[in-house]
Formats: sequence, structure tokens, C-alpha cells
Amino acid sequence: VIRTSPYPSGASIDSERLVLDIEAACSNVHRYTSHTPLIRAPYLDRLIRGEVHLKAECLQPTGSFKIRGALHAMSQLRASGQQDVVAFSSGNHGIGVAYAAHCLNMRATIVVPSDIPRAKLAKIRSLGADVVFYDRERESREAIATALCAHTEASIVKPYDDWDTIAGQGTCGVEIKEQLSLTPDSLLVCTGGGGFAAGTGTYLRRYYPELSIITAEPEGWDDHLQSFQVGKRSAAAATTASICDGLLAPEPGEITFVVNQHNRAQGMSASDDLVRRAMKLIWEQLGVGLEPSGAIGVASLLAQPERFSEQIVVITLSGGNVDRDRFDEALNLAR
Amino acid sequence: VIRTSPYPSGASIDSERLVLDIEAACSNVHRYTSHTPLIRAPYLDRLIRGEVHLKAECLQPTGSFKIRGALHAMSQLRASGQQDVVAFSSGNHGIGVAYAAHCLNMRATIVVPSDIPRAKLAKIRSLGADVVFYDRERESREAIATALCAHTEASIVKPYDDWDTIAGQGTCGVEIKEQLSLTPDSLLVCTGGGGFAAGTGTYLRRYYPELSIITAEPEGWDDHLQSFQVGKRSAAAATTASICDGLLAPEPGEITFVVNQHNRAQGMSASDDLVRRAMKLIWEQLGVGLEPSGAIGVASLLAQPERFSEQIVVITLSGGNVDRDRFDEALNLAR
Repeated sequence: VIRTSPYPSGASIDSERLVLDIEAACSNVHRYTSHTPLIRAPYLDRLIRGEVHLKAECLQPTGSFKIRGALHAMSQLRASGQQDVVAFSSGNHGIGVAYAAHCLNMRATIVVPSDIPRAKLAKIRSLGADVVFYDRERESREAIATALCAHTEASIVKPYDDWDTIAGQGTCGVEIKEQLSLTPDSLLVCTGGGGFAAGTGTYLRRYYPELSIITAEPEGWDDHLQSFQVGKRSAAAATTASICDGLLAPEPGEITFVVNQHNRAQGMSASDDLVRRAMKLIWEQLGVGLEPSGAIGVASLLAQPERFSEQIVVITLSGGNVDRDRFDEALNLAR
Repeated sequence: VIRTSPYPSGASIDSERLVLDIEAACSNVHRYTSHTPLIRAPYLDRLIRGEVHLKAECLQPTGSFKIRGALHAMSQLRASGQQDVVAFSSGNHGIGVAYAAHCLNMRATIVVPSDIPRAKLAKIRSLGADVVFYDRERESREAIATALCAHTEASIVKPYDDWDTIAGQGTCGVEIKEQLSLTPDSLLVCTGGGGFAAGTGTYLRRYYPELSIITAEPEGWDDHLQSFQVGKRSAAAATTASICDGLLAPEPGEITFVVNQHNRAQGMSASDDLVRRAMKLIWEQLGVGLEPSGAIGVASLLAQPERFSEQIVVITLSGGNVDRDRFDEALNLAR
């Protein structure tokens, strides 16, 4: 089952329509989730002599923002009579799809890498989804998911490169708009495939046309940064490993890149060392546990605080699904 | 400087007036804090086959609800010309008073036990307050604080047994009322001196007259439970230690007890073992770090889940200021 996009393909972006779709997505999303808090962090305020507001998506019932896109995309599928879905995911999207299937009374099969963190695997299974493993080095998760669908009536729920998924992620922007009484200067978004930045960025740019949208990525996996610089989708060199297991997308999505480019997004990156420092900082200051991928936004601020001097900055804390031994290791190694 | 109470003393409780004072306190509190989230916990839902909503006060900028009472009581003092305050505190009230002093441009001296957790001491000092230590076993913190005030114009900000403090803590109830779309059956409140239960309980009983208010205390320190049973303030036996450093009040407050009794509050208690299990559960399910005292509400639910069967339950997560080695130890010992 192939779904067709309601949008024109290619470079023509109808931002107003996406904003309306994001607003419409809120009812599908907020039926099963509550607003995540926008938390103040006095230490970061002092660091940039401005205001930092942290959007704590790690406090979603699934531990990440991915629940938003899954709930919206799957509500549409459910309404059109679909019962079965397949998703490929490094973890958080799989948990989101499993949770949405549980809420919407659908059946989900999640294709996950064999090195998926145990905390993520346990959450997927506890929500009643089926799990299929693949080898990150040797197999194509897309091919496996497509093969799974070929013999069934199942639809693939894409992790980011899909208009419904993007509209769902954009509901985070609706909440930020409601929660923030001031006009933000910058939005730092933890970025893998670019769907979170595309949805949330589009919504917030509607109300704050001067807002700088900045994708935050691990060093060596900064394909958005590189793509924005050359003006077309490019794969990162990725010669190094990264502890950010959720952000190892090799290049920006096709749709998401066009949207982010339209929004004049810029890119930043940060090292694993700074990711560990960010995880430790957020734990010590707020008592909130972040997975490495969820700390990349704060890590990017720590990399160049002077870039945000005296600004009002919103940073996503995108996820918190981390095994405790890896969390402890990161905090112990943090400098 | 002794403040006089605007309320009649003794057993005559004017709940309507307290509700109005709580509503009025919101402007003093919300000027410097944002709403804490009410978080769903699917695992706990399944345990009681009902709905559990966790009010995450550990996500306050100070890591606990105590900021509410401090901001309200000290805003009143500030308006009447006071500049200096003294507080005695096992930690979280001291952080709240230090934070409020920082916000309101006042000077604070905090009298703390010599075994105060390092995380709490560091937060008090980083907010610019002066610190005086006392020996929990041998000295009276009230006597020290009174002596400190005798030679100055400073006012004591009481941790719980004070109408302004109670009204400030009650602002948590205003948020719960806004955030909850259903009628709750029970409210489980982490309880030391009883101010949080008195304020939040009074506000919520105004809108949900059938609500059961339940104070949650450590085993051996369940002075509220025992006082409710005999109908008058009684000290707990307290022959055992407890890891809940914030809840070692020997008996209910004078004012708070009358208010809680008026609200027909009941008491529950839980062991340190269950507190550790609750800390581990909230960390694994939500990625939120609780101090032992902040986990006693969830621990009480775990102690008797059948008591809450098919109910809608609100539980406070009252604080998250815990040293990381003590946190790790608790999670490792959890069974």
C-alpha cells in the first residue's frame, strides 16, 4: 500500500497549508499525550546572558517526540481502514509507532537494528508490537520493511520523510507557541532525518518570521549542516562513530530538506564529549535523564555559547530512552 | 519580627478564604516559575487498572515544590518592606527561600543540618544565600534561627506551619485542576510537615468534594497517619532511620494538622525498599530522577495498589534533589 502525498512534490512548499495541517494534527496527538513542559534552566541563562527554554520531549509517555508523528500519521491510516503498520527505526520512532498502535487498536511490526538499546527494545515489546531485527552494517532496513509489506496489507509509517509525520512533529511547535510569552531568537532542534525541525520550524516561523532554526547533529554526522552549505542534499562523511544512536541518518530526507531549506535553517554540530557534558548538566540541574541524541541541542549551545549571546533560545530535549549503564558511563566520562 | 496570622487560630478553618488566598498566590508564584507537567505513567495505569497522573514538582527550577510557598510568603514580606529572611530547612525549603530571595532581591540565611545532601547545599549556595549548619541530633534549628533573628530585622520563613506558606503550596492544586480533565478519586501527597497536603488538598477539595487526600510518609515517620487515627497531633515513634531526608518532621504542624483534619485526610506509609523501587520505576519509565522523599507517594501506591483499583489518582513527585551516588545506590539496591 503506497500512500500518495497531498502536497505537490519537489521544491514548491506551501507553508500555510502545512501550518493548517499541523494545527489539525493537534487533536490526533493530544488525545493520547499531554503537553510536555518548557523548562527554564538558570545555569544556561547565565551562560548566554539570555533565556534558555528547554522543551522536554523526553517526558512524553514514550520518552521522545516521535510519538507525535506516529499518532497523527497512523490516525489518518486508521481512518482510511488500515489495521496493520510496519516501521523501521533506531528505537524512538518504533516506540512511537508501537504506542500509537496500542492507542488506536492497530497491529505494528517494528524493524530495529540488532544493537538497539535495551531500554528502547523493552518499551517496544511492552506495548505489544512485533519486532524484527536487522544488521545496521549489512542490511537495508527499508528493503526489509518493504518486503514485510509486500505480502500483507500493511502500510509503512515513515520516520521523517512524510508529510503526515512532519505535520505530527509540528504539534510540538504549537505547544511552544502557547507556552512561550516572549519572541524567541533561535530554535535548536535535535536532528536525524529532519522531520522534527521541518514541522516545528515551519509552525514557529509562521509566528516568529525572524526565528533562526538550527539543526543540531553529532560531529561527523552533520549532513544537514553540509547540505545547507552546498544547497543540496549531501551525505555526511561519517568516518567516526557517535554515541547519538538516534541520529545516524546518512543524509537529510527529501521532503524534510526542502522544507528546512525553505525555512532558511542552519546547521550546528557537537562532539560526543559535549553531548556527555550536556547529559550531566541536565541531570544535575534538572534531574532529567537524556539519551545522547536528546542532548545534542544543549551540546551545540555549549559548543558555541557566544553565538547565542543575550538571545531567547528554545532547545528541544528530544528523547530520554537510554540504558542506565550507558547513562552512568556518559556521566562518568563527562568533563 | 513576628508576623501575625490573618486567620483565626485553632480549629476554626475558613476553607473558602484559603482557596481565595491560593488563587491570589498564583501571581506571586507564576511570575518566577512555570507550570510543572502532569505526566501519565502507563505502567502505573496498568497496575491499578485506572489512571495515574504524576505532578512533577521535581521539575521546578529549584527541584521541588517548596519554591511555591517561599515565593508567596516572601513576596508578602517584601511588599511590607522586609529585606532579610532566615529559614531552617533540611534542604528543599532552603533552596526555595534562596531562589525566592534571588528573584525578589532579598537577603537569605539558611540554617541546614550538617548532613544535608551535597546537591541541595550546592543549589542553596549557588543562589547566593548564606548557610549556617546545625547538628540534627543535638541542636534545635528553630532555636538557632530565632537567635539569628533576635539581633537583626530578619523574618523567619517557616517551612510549613504558616498560612502564607500553605497558600503558596496550594498553587500546585490550581495547576492540577487546570491540567486534569477528569475528576480524581485520590490525591497522594508526599508529606513532611503537612503544608503541601493542606494547600493543595484544600484547593482540590473545593472542586472535587469527594476527593480522598492521603498523606504519604516513610515508615516509622508516619506521624500524620497516627495523628489522623487518634484525632490529635502525635509524634511518630521514629525508632528507625529513613532514606527520605526531607520528611523527618517529628509531628504534624499545628495549623497544617487542623487543615488536613478538616479535609478528612488519611495517611499511608511505605518502606525504604518501596521508595527505592519507586525511584527506579520512575527513572526507567519516565527518565526522571527523584530524591527518596519525592518518591514516597509512588511508593505508597506500590505498597497497596488494590486500594486504588480503577481509580483516577494524582500523585505528587515532590522533589528531585539527590546526590548522584545516593541515587545510584538506591537504584542498585532496588528490588
